[in-house]
Amino acid sequence: MKISIERATLLKAVGQAQSVVERRNTIPILANVLIEAEGNTVSFRATDLDIEVVDKAPAQVERAGATTVSAVMLHEIVRKLPDGALVQLTADAASGRLTVEAGRSTFSLATLPKEDFPVMASSEYTANFSAPAPILRRLFDKSKFAISTEETRYYLNGVYMHVATGEDGQVLRCVATDGHRLARIDAPLPDGAQGMPGVIVPRKTVGELRKLLDDDDMQIAVSVSETKVRFATPAITLTSKVIDGTFPDYTRVIPVANARRLEVDAAEFAKAVDRVATVSSERSRAVKLQLDEDRLILSVNAPDAGAAEEELAVAYGDERLEIGFNAKYLLEIASQVDRENAVFLFNSSGDPTLMREGNDTSAVYVVMPMRV
Amino acid sequence: MKISIERATLLKAVGQAQSVVERRNTIPILANVLIEAEGNTVSFRATDLDIEVVDKAPAQVERAGATTVSAVMLHEIVRKLPDGALVQLTADAASGRLTVEAGRSTFSLATLPKEDFPVMASSEYTANFSAPAPILRRLFDKSKFAISTEETRYYLNGVYMHVATGEDGQVLRCVATDGHRLARIDAPLPDGAQGMPGVIVPRKTVGELRKLLDDDDMQIAVSVSETKVRFATPAITLTSKVIDGTFPDYTRVIPVANARRLEVDAAEFAKAVDRVATVSSERSRAVKLQLDEDRLILSVNAPDAGAAEEELAVAYGDERLEIGFNAKYLLEIASQVDRENAVFLFNSSGDPTLMREGNDTSAVYVVMPMRV
Repeated sequence: MKISIERATLLKAVGQAQSVVERRNTIPILANVLIEAEGNTVSFRATDLDIEVVDKAPAQVERAGATTVSAVMLHEIVRKLPDGALVQLTADAASGRLTVEAGRSTFSLATLPKEDFPVMASSEYTANFSAPAPILRRLFDKSKFAISTEETRYYLNGVYMHVATGEDGQVLRCVATDGHRLARIDAPLPDGAQGMPGVIVPRKTVGELRKLLDDDDMQIAVSVSETKVRFATPAITLTSKVIDGTFPDYTRVIPVANARRLEVDAAEFAKAVDRVATVSSERSRAVKLQLDEDRLILSVNAPDAGAAEEELAVAYGDERLEIGFNAKYLLEIASQVDRENAVFLFNSSGDPTLMREGNDTSAVYVVMPMRV
Repeated sequence: MKISIERATLLKAVGQAQSVVERRNTIPILANVLIEAEGNTVSFRATDLDIEVVDKAPAQVERAGATTVSAVMLHEIVRKLPDGALVQLTADAASGRLTVEAGRSTFSLATLPKEDFPVMASSEYTANFSAPAPILRRLFDKSKFAISTEETRYYLNGVYMHVATGEDGQVLRCVATDGHRLARIDAPLPDGAQGMPGVIVPRKTVGELRKLLDDDDMQIAVSVSETKVRFATPAITLTSKVIDGTFPDYTRVIPVANARRLEVDAAEFAKAVDRVATVSSERSRAVKLQLDEDRLILSVNAPDAGAAEEELAVAYGDERLEIGFNAKYLLEIASQVDRENAVFLFNSSGDPTLMREGNDTSAVYVVMPMRV
């Protein structure tokens, strides 16, 4: 293998690949990136056995071929090369080394045989569709904060992407929950997604996917099977196993008859929650909300450290209510609101509370109260 | 005590104080800041028993008095208050609480008796002088990287500030070393510093001092005794115990007869060192320098990972030389150079090497070679 490639192109391709590589590996080849050159393209493939990313980049291929080198080291080297450099990668079968040359720098890196690299088996996908990057970005960005980190409930360690029936017909829906809070985000159903099986996209995949979604004009090709999901742009293909489990029936926990309605400026609300929570100990960050006639009093009482109280002018016309929440959960859902006021719908101090942005039901959040 | 103070003024004063407070304290009151209000001034005092900082700020004092509250919590609260807020602090002797009020926020914080707060005993200082902030900044900024972290050699855990004889007479000198590298920085001797005892300023004090030195026009009042050092601006007084030990005779390790002279662009040199060091393992980051007729070859050989080599055009007219260094040490001293080229003076591959900026001998660095 012998190729020439621009430093910026190489950096981007290797950067995406190396982020999938786990920093601590018991299997040496999983630390490597598989470099394959053919025609006028070079591809960089990395995997952790659950996720595989393949990044294709244009290059001048003088001699086709393939090899594997440490993904992190190659990325570090390329990152440190001067802007605008032309990089030459040459695999020497005799020495088993990959030479990286740029300007007056020469690196000679240890390789492992390309035959040992575990390429993910290809799948039959039952649904293939295309979705604009901003749509997918919204679905995952607004739901991922609620992903559970409890490994025992492994089926909650991801975002449940599936087809559901919304108010105006079928939608593409992402749901995440950890049992304390839940996010349900809907988007118009793309053509071809109708028969899609519901899949739980693992947390790490959600993080890697995010890097494909920055370009507003990009169309993302999505393929889904019972066991795998694939997201692809012309340059990058991200394939991931999905979590092998059943996502619980979340519809039961979304309240439909909560009648007490609070409307509040989300940013002001978040700042006030953050302030009063300062006095509480790290463990039980309970904030009490007292609601009365267009008035919200937020308070925290931490016997050791002190107490805090803040009043906000809000829109509230229902019966007097006292209810407590984990401050962190309140802050997280309030920070999802970006266009309009936050609308909270309460039932009693013991029931789940619903939050949405204005009257927009395409993104709703549920948070469980705590006793205060 | 009852005072009103601007949020920005309060934030700055409490910010400086709380950074001295250790995050993990077995003595509860050491987590607190002592607030004392009198006249039209409020002072914030914090200590870790080795360093004490007192920050004075203008305030409207309605009722003089004093109390102590958690420094970190007060800082967090003030930080989260809105810009431009007027903050009222009221100590209530009956409840033992300090009330913090701003706008519609009210906090009530636990206090500890002001009598329990350990105020550092005052000292007789044997020398008092004044130095411009940029002079002190240079003395400490350019030396502190060489401070040792080995606790067994506690007398190297700081910067040795003392009066020495430079090429053009007496100077104020800062020296730090960890046995592998050394920094020696000189400044003109300020009036009044002549009889100053040499003191070892601890690493943490150097860090806290740095925050007093940002303003180019500030004159810093420095007081030194055998056991303490004090740095003061009109608002802030930083008092610190000095390290009780004898700084070794560093003059013996500064080479005076190194004859082989390399001159190199410091930024280019640092980047090249950083690049070739990428392939070496974290532990022994040895870089080899091969010098010959206006040519420098930097190389690293890490049997497991690979090898790297880079050539730089330099000014070198002496005998051929091969010498090895720890990459981190080379990077650190090269990054001290900001105006001119770096000049290295070598003797043999086993002797300490001297580095300075151009022909400026007011900042010299010594680095020990390593075998490669």
